[in-house]
Amino acid sequence: MSFDTLLTRSESWLPVSPDSHFGLDNIPFGIISTRSDRTPRPAVAIGAKALDLAVFAANGGFSSLPQFTETTVFTTETSLNAFAALGRKKHTAVRYYLQEVLEINTQYPQKLKTNVALQSICLHDLTDVRMHLPLQIGNYTDFYAGKNHAYNVGVLFRGPENALQPNYEHMPIGYHGRASSVVVSGTTIRRPRGQILEDPKAAVRKSIFTATKQLDYELELAVFVARNTKIGESVDVNEAAEFLFGVVLMNDWSARDIQGWEYVPLGPFTSKSFATSISPWVVLIEALEPFRAIPLPRTTDIPLHPYLQEREQYNVYNIDLSISLSTPCGATHTLSKTSSSNLLYSFPQLLAHHSITGCPLRTGDLLGTGTISGTDAESLGSLLEVTKNGTSSLVLQDDGERVFLEDGDEVIMEGYCGRGVGFGSVSGLVLPAWTDTDTGRVAKVS
Amino acid sequence: MSFDTLLTRSESWLPVSPDSHFGLDNIPFGIISTRSDRTPRPAVAIGAKALDLAVFAANGGFSSLPQFTETTVFTTETSLNAFAALGRKKHTAVRYYLQEVLEINTQYPQKLKTNVALQSICLHDLTDVRMHLPLQIGNYTDFYAGKNHAYNVGVLFRGPENALQPNYEHMPIGYHGRASSVVVSGTTIRRPRGQILEDPKAAVRKSIFTATKQLDYELELAVFVARNTKIGESVDVNEAAEFLFGVVLMNDWSARDIQGWEYVPLGPFTSKSFATSISPWVVLIEALEPFRAIPLPRTTDIPLHPYLQEREQYNVYNIDLSISLSTPCGATHTLSKTSSSNLLYSFPQLLAHHSITGCPLRTGDLLGTGTISGTDAESLGSLLEVTKNGTSSLVLQDDGERVFLEDGDEVIMEGYCGRGVGFGSVSGLVLPAWTDTDTGRVAKVS
Repeated sequence: MSFDTLLTRSESWLPVSPDSHFGLDNIPFGIISTRSDRTPRPAVAIGAKALDLAVFAANGGFSSLPQFTETTVFTTETSLNAFAALGRKKHTAVRYYLQEVLEINTQYPQKLKTNVALQSICLHDLTDVRMHLPLQIGNYTDFYAGKNHAYNVGVLFRGPENALQPNYEHMPIGYHGRASSVVVSGTTIRRPRGQILEDPKAAVRKSIFTATKQLDYELELAVFVARNTKIGESVDVNEAAEFLFGVVLMNDWSARDIQGWEYVPLGPFTSKSFATSISPWVVLIEALEPFRAIPLPRTTDIPLHPYLQEREQYNVYNIDLSISLSTPCGATHTLSKTSSSNLLYSFPQLLAHHSITGCPLRTGDLLGTGTISGTDAESLGSLLEVTKNGTSSLVLQDDGERVFLEDGDEVIMEGYCGRGVGFGSVSGLVLPAWTDTDTGRVAKVS
Repeated sequence: MSFDTLLTRSESWLPVSPDSHFGLDNIPFGIISTRSDRTPRPAVAIGAKALDLAVFAANGGFSSLPQFTETTVFTTETSLNAFAALGRKKHTAVRYYLQEVLEINTQYPQKLKTNVALQSICLHDLTDVRMHLPLQIGNYTDFYAGKNHAYNVGVLFRGPENALQPNYEHMPIGYHGRASSVVVSGTTIRRPRGQILEDPKAAVRKSIFTATKQLDYELELAVFVARNTKIGESVDVNEAAEFLFGVVLMNDWSARDIQGWEYVPLGPFTSKSFATSISPWVVLIEALEPFRAIPLPRTTDIPLHPYLQEREQYNVYNIDLSISLSTPCGATHTLSKTSSSNLLYSFPQLLAHHSITGCPLRTGDLLGTGTISGTDAESLGSLLEVTKNGTSSLVLQDDGERVFLEDGDEVIMEGYCGRGVGFGSVSGLVLPAWTDTDTGRVAKVS
């Protein structure tokens, strides 16, 4: 679909408020269930409604799109994996067709606009649906492509001279994350317990077992992989977009004190794998096309290796991102505003690098960008940066202060591109750590 | 099943050679297919035969085990996940029953021993079956519990004074690996290409793009998780064995030069995720009971945190492990002989630590021990240690020498406990890297 086509499309026969993230130019995909039907099933969001694709497809909703013969991806599947695996052309065709159906001057009025009976069973208020993980996530990888974040953290731990590691501008740094702990927005986050270093200055390094005292968030974008590759194959950076499905917001919760003690020499482990939250609606790569932007500049003269060189420079996105904190007092504070253009590498580059040694990619794999920060104090993607590793505090207007997150805090991240294309939000409420007398904390053998 | 029960059981009516790894005391589970039926399906190995559990179950093979009502885990499943998810009691009951059926004085002769017609369709020569990955692996985690290996590598990079990191004796160090690149024994290994540091001594650190020059193996054991836990729950170290299914040998192929350039600060990534090979037959935890051993001693006075303290000390295993190299000349050289008792942490401790912050475990998760090395030069689990990071070479009798692996090398690892209980082998042949003109290396958009 071309940029021009998107511009001409503007209004739906369904009411869409001007500040909605789910306008006709978006059509994000998710997995819903309702009180009357608890089976998770695919849907798209439009305005304040979810269009239930299982019901829509079962009632001939796609009969005017004859090339889409795979409607079982909506009628029988409980995740979007099967739809994602159909590939970019099908995603584009289905999204375009749904835009046609929902447009005010639709050429298919009988499909839904004038079919009040079908509307009554396939349109749900967003406030009435429960959202589930949109895809079954086979593998989750988190990168470190937010250059300002990498620099800020580097300054904290190594000083400004050596802030970025020598490899940083030559390849996307990343690590394998934990797929099983990725949860959908709204899932509560239990404050983790683990080992932390008692006194970093003591001669004998001794750890204590405790609830983390440094619970943090990380603002990220993440992309879902659409297509499998075979082991030994690499993805061409200029073909990589064909292997992508869509994008979500991500909060990669982190326990900084547990991380500090465990991460040498193999990287973050249990300090991250207790929870990673994602927004429930997947914005297709197609929908983001009009918002492409240029990545951050490299500072080295050494060119990238050819496998990372893109023909097209506009491969990151201009998405306005924000982080808010809702405290137990009921007040909500904006902690940060930044843009997703603060990345050194694009999704195609992440995919090309991930597969360069032959690692097979799988439908449903999730690739995070790493924390996204701007350059000034109001645009930081983690409390680690805001409070300079806990050495200062963040004053919340008339509501105390924070060094790291406290129990009862809810972190809300939002992303909006413009013209009704947005991500909604990803949120999570921090629950107190288990105490030793809580039995719920121990996994039971049944 | 008690140790004594195992000792009294000795002979099958099927021929089992004295050096077989698959005696009556073992009964390992795997996934097979045959030329006449290409559907992957569960089986057990006995002597030189695979007993096809799909066919056995479909023909009433389990009708004398009435409490085993879940025979569809064998008749309809293409992996062992559903069987594993039934839990330890069921694994024990099914294994014990199969031992009864296969014992020379079986009380159920009509089940198989005298049923020649059934034998003809459910017993296959092991040489005729194709082995598949035994479980669908949701998440793969690799630990670093081989203390001698950690020490040896520490000496190479930091000297003997600081060989082990301060955290090493206080928790199992581990990292999230890549589930999609775990392959079954016999899968060929394409030499990976990637970035390596051109000259570690140069002032400006510059990478070149090349096939790895430092392809290595790592000798490990790995355990499959049987049962799911919920997010936020931890596994009690003294209950952890109930969450385990069985054990395989593992070769965690590594590209040392790619690893050296990429791993700061987030750990190994593409240098590992090109391939990890496992042996095809899963030896159940039950079968390993008679071979329990004491882990390596800790050297610190500081006790382990309670969540890692085991009531029972005998929680690692005495498994004789060996590494052989079959070269393009056709000669086979033994490179190493060691024991799996060279671990500082047990599988229950790995599980307890993995879940301590609340990370959910899933049926089919694979947890590697990390490289297992002994203390002398003939017992090392990686070439990194044998050749001291490539500074010396390994002389192969009348067959040249090796610093790291060469194209055409086949690495074969074996593990044997005793009394007919063994793992068979995990092997992999190294293929040359793709060249720029090979088109097969690029993933195709279909």
